[in-house]
Amino acid sequence: MAKVLCVLYDDPVDGYPTSYPRNDLPRIDHYPGGQTVPSPRAVDFTPGHLLGSVSGELGLRPFLESGGHTFVVTSDKDGADSTFERELPDADVVISQPFWPAYLTAERIAKARNLKLAITAGIGSDHVDLDAALARDITVAEVTFSNSISVAEHVVMMTLSLVRNYLPSHQWVLDGGWNIADCVSRSYDIEGMQVGTVAAGRIGLAVLRRLKPFDVGLHYTDRHRLPESVEEELGLTFHESAADMVPHCDVVTINAPLHPETEGLFDDELIGTMKRGAYLINTARARICDRDAVDRALRDGHLAGYAGDVWFPQPAPPDHPWRTMPHQGMTPHISGSSLSAQARYAAGTREILEAWLTGTPIREEYLIVDGGHLAGAGAHSYSTTPPK
Amino acid sequence: MAKVLCVLYDDPVDGYPTSYPRNDLPRIDHYPGGQTVPSPRAVDFTPGHLLGSVSGELGLRPFLESGGHTFVVTSDKDGADSTFERELPDADVVISQPFWPAYLTAERIAKARNLKLAITAGIGSDHVDLDAALARDITVAEVTFSNSISVAEHVVMMTLSLVRNYLPSHQWVLDGGWNIADCVSRSYDIEGMQVGTVAAGRIGLAVLRRLKPFDVGLHYTDRHRLPESVEEELGLTFHESAADMVPHCDVVTINAPLHPETEGLFDDELIGTMKRGAYLINTARARICDRDAVDRALRDGHLAGYAGDVWFPQPAPPDHPWRTMPHQGMTPHISGSSLSAQARYAAGTREILEAWLTGTPIREEYLIVDGGHLAGAGAHSYSTTPPK
Repeated sequence: MAKVLCVLYDDPVDGYPTSYPRNDLPRIDHYPGGQTVPSPRAVDFTPGHLLGSVSGELGLRPFLESGGHTFVVTSDKDGADSTFERELPDADVVISQPFWPAYLTAERIAKARNLKLAITAGIGSDHVDLDAALARDITVAEVTFSNSISVAEHVVMMTLSLVRNYLPSHQWVLDGGWNIADCVSRSYDIEGMQVGTVAAGRIGLAVLRRLKPFDVGLHYTDRHRLPESVEEELGLTFHESAADMVPHCDVVTINAPLHPETEGLFDDELIGTMKRGAYLINTARARICDRDAVDRALRDGHLAGYAGDVWFPQPAPPDHPWRTMPHQGMTPHISGSSLSAQARYAAGTREILEAWLTGTPIREEYLIVDGGHLAGAGAHSYSTTPPK
Repeated sequence: MAKVLCVLYDDPVDGYPTSYPRNDLPRIDHYPGGQTVPSPRAVDFTPGHLLGSVSGELGLRPFLESGGHTFVVTSDKDGADSTFERELPDADVVISQPFWPAYLTAERIAKARNLKLAITAGIGSDHVDLDAALARDITVAEVTFSNSISVAEHVVMMTLSLVRNYLPSHQWVLDGGWNIADCVSRSYDIEGMQVGTVAAGRIGLAVLRRLKPFDVGLHYTDRHRLPESVEEELGLTFHESAADMVPHCDVVTINAPLHPETEGLFDDELIGTMKRGAYLINTARARICDRDAVDRALRDGHLAGYAGDVWFPQPAPPDHPWRTMPHQGMTPHISGSSLSAQARYAAGTREILEAWLTGTPIREEYLIVDGGHLAGAGAHSYSTTPPK
């Protein structure tokens, strides 16, 4: 029997919801490219309900407890006295989310003597020290593609909102004004602009596809060149590097994983090569951008706007400068945790657990680290981290 | 020599801008379908600067004054003592904008004995009593297509923002919180939803095209059926009426002109036939929706969100219920007045004036009323208003 330790974000301030805005979710069977959505043998939750918070429990309790397993859920994740750190030493499985990451550092992995499986309920396992996981032969899995489209939608939303100056304009409504000139002095159409993505994987490509009919010029850089047919269909311009690409762009969107090649990529120097008045959207990982360089570029007007939903650390402290810098359209880390996404990553987490608990293979596309090697999705996204 | 009376919105509260976020605008040569952008002989303004406000003057003063014409610009438009009403009796030309409409009622037209031309610097001439203009043989012209794409971008932005619960989530950032569960309890992906537009003219069709890659089902109703090739390309479902369409939709966007057939269309009864949890986006004209029915539907949860940028009257009073109703994503009337749009409608207004002042024909596609008849664009959009 296994002990499963699950770290989730807190319930809403007024408590776990008793009703929802909508009655159901659209049915999605497969992702672009054909991968099927998660397919556990069953689920014990209602799709469209809040699953990613502590009381939502990813809908896993009946399944795990009926199998005789121990299931501990907490939001208390930081510090030596946290529930997470106290429950970790005898946990067989840890489940965490990028939105409220339980950082599985090398030190914590050293303490977690029983740990065999770390699941990301979502996508992005940079909160796990992959070198330590490789060395200890811990399997690291994530629910690949479960919320990629969710994030892509967030990127398009934030891009349009920055370019059109939505948030300050809405604020004039709340404040009782009708200050059209104040609203529109920073409002542009995106039509005709040049938009580039750093990485064109599942999310980046979905962003490009969604922006295509806006009659913008589309650019990308990636280690892996897209098929020529896709480049032609979308009219993409490929650039060898971010440094090559960003001087041509009015909008830059970052859709790369965090790894040594991307960490700190958008520093003063690279931002300085962007066009004056460009917009930067980062829903990937905060540390791909230099926190203070972004703040400076907004204050001196070199960037016209910055938006995204990733911060470091998470939760972001109340005095994080990205909360108060001008022309920002930030949200907390939510883009991949819509109710739609939650239903998919909760089902995917169950699918992974069903496989692991019965000793059957986990879907190849979910595996980041397995058998002491970078595997599947991990080999694609994290390949600059050399296996030990 | 003519007297041109121009009503524009006020300058920003801190005065006319001395700098702008960006250095220039993308170059746009023609609209979808091939119509060329406005082509006056010259312009005296800098594209990308604020032109739609009082100090911006649509960039027309050098042109008009060098021709010996009188040019009066004001934002003071309402009431018998307003500058507009005082300057109106001997004006030959009135220029106004939907964002800050100078209502040309039958009474005002009766007082404006010299009036021969009413130009909308933008699109939508419902602030002009067209019956009175027809009877008096006043030409009514607008800058057709100048800001249609601008509005379509606004519609997509607002749709995504409502569905994904952007505005309240951003507010948590400002408030210093990290309340993911509060943000996501109302956040969905649009993927898989059914989206319908009331009218599929320039704006509605542009919205449909932009939403297509989001993998949504697309619906429309219009008096004029789209070509079969367009229906097939976009996978559109046609409905005979709004009443037929809205029960099938998760998102409804209104892109119709205001005329007797659309006025008050979205009342308690029609909204009551929409799905619980649907979203309604109206960037067309406020009076297409029953103000209080919208408010009620948001408060009782039948609608999950309402957004748009059109109000009645304009400016909206500080106590307008749409400012304070829940789950609203409103802006002041700005969608068609981005700096990008301003450059086009200022150029188009000049093009119309150049033609009219030299006695050459105004472009057919700009004419709403001409020679005592509904003409060009007007005949398409306003044809339920019977000519007298």
